[in-house]
Amino acid sequence: MRRLAILICSGALLSGSLLAADSDSKDVIDYRQDVMKSMEEQSSILGEMASGVVPTDNMNTDMQILALSASTALKAFQPKVPGGKAKPEIWTNWDDFSKKMNDFADKASAGAKAAQAQGTDAAMTELVDIANGCKGCHDMYREETKGQN
Amino acid sequence: MRRLAILICSGALLSGSLLAADSDSKDVIDYRQDVMKSMEEQSSILGEMASGVVPTDNMNTDMQILALSASTALKAFQPKVPGGKAKPEIWTNWDDFSKKMNDFADKASAGAKAAQAQGTDAAMTELVDIANGCKGCHDMYREETKGQN
Repeated sequence: MRRLAILICSGALLSGSLLAADSDSKDVIDYRQDVMKSMEEQSSILGEMASGVVPTDNMNTDMQILALSASTALKAFQPKVPGGKAKPEIWTNWDDFSKKMNDFADKASAGAKAAQAQGTDAAMTELVDIANGCKGCHDMYREETKGQN
Repeated sequence: MRRLAILICSGALLSGSLLAADSDSKDVIDYRQDVMKSMEEQSSILGEMASGVVPTDNMNTDMQILALSASTALKAFQPKVPGGKAKPEIWTNWDDFSKKMNDFADKASAGAKAAQAQGTDAAMTELVDIANGCKGCHDMYREETKGQN
């Protein structure tokens, strides 16, 4: 909207509005991709810990980070702006998509709490459930072609 | 180490050890890059919010996520394994590097607390300080060529 205001101030009202719509869409997609890419990196970190190739010292913190990120993700999909790897079905099946995303956030939160209360073994178990949550949603709502989230 | 154990079990002790050293180094670098890339995405998210192009509803949570991630980052650099964008000075100036990283984690933590207690305006102010923390360390310890973190 700031960009729109600047364009309006410049007097290029009609072309300005069109440009603003384009840049607003780009902003929405950029934000969504940043949220999903951050979670992808966090999942890689947890996967590396679970497979024993890096130390698990920060595993509880990393579970919390993933849980917090998951709690922010649905918001990033609320604007109906197709693009990137997001399938249009996200918005045509919004009730199912948002339920899946909320379930995922709940699982991640429960996983983080279990890891904190019971330690690394519990975290490992929870991670399987969380990974299934990722997959269940990606299978239906993410394009599997090369590109962004 | 799991890979090393498997290789030792296969009887290929000498070549196995060498291969394991290579894959251990790759694991260390992969993990470090995942931690830094996750923070990079989180910084982009906060930058998008600060510039007003996406809603700030989750800004407090995103500040917390960055603070938690920052608290895990030093660990990822502890193994002395040069590679990616990490300059060798990280390990030759370890005291300075670790102080800068700890200061950054402290700033991010203070910023997250201020955002939670005082709201979005405080978060915006804190972000400037946090961004300077990123830059101060990257200027000295990150290669600016193309590549990974």
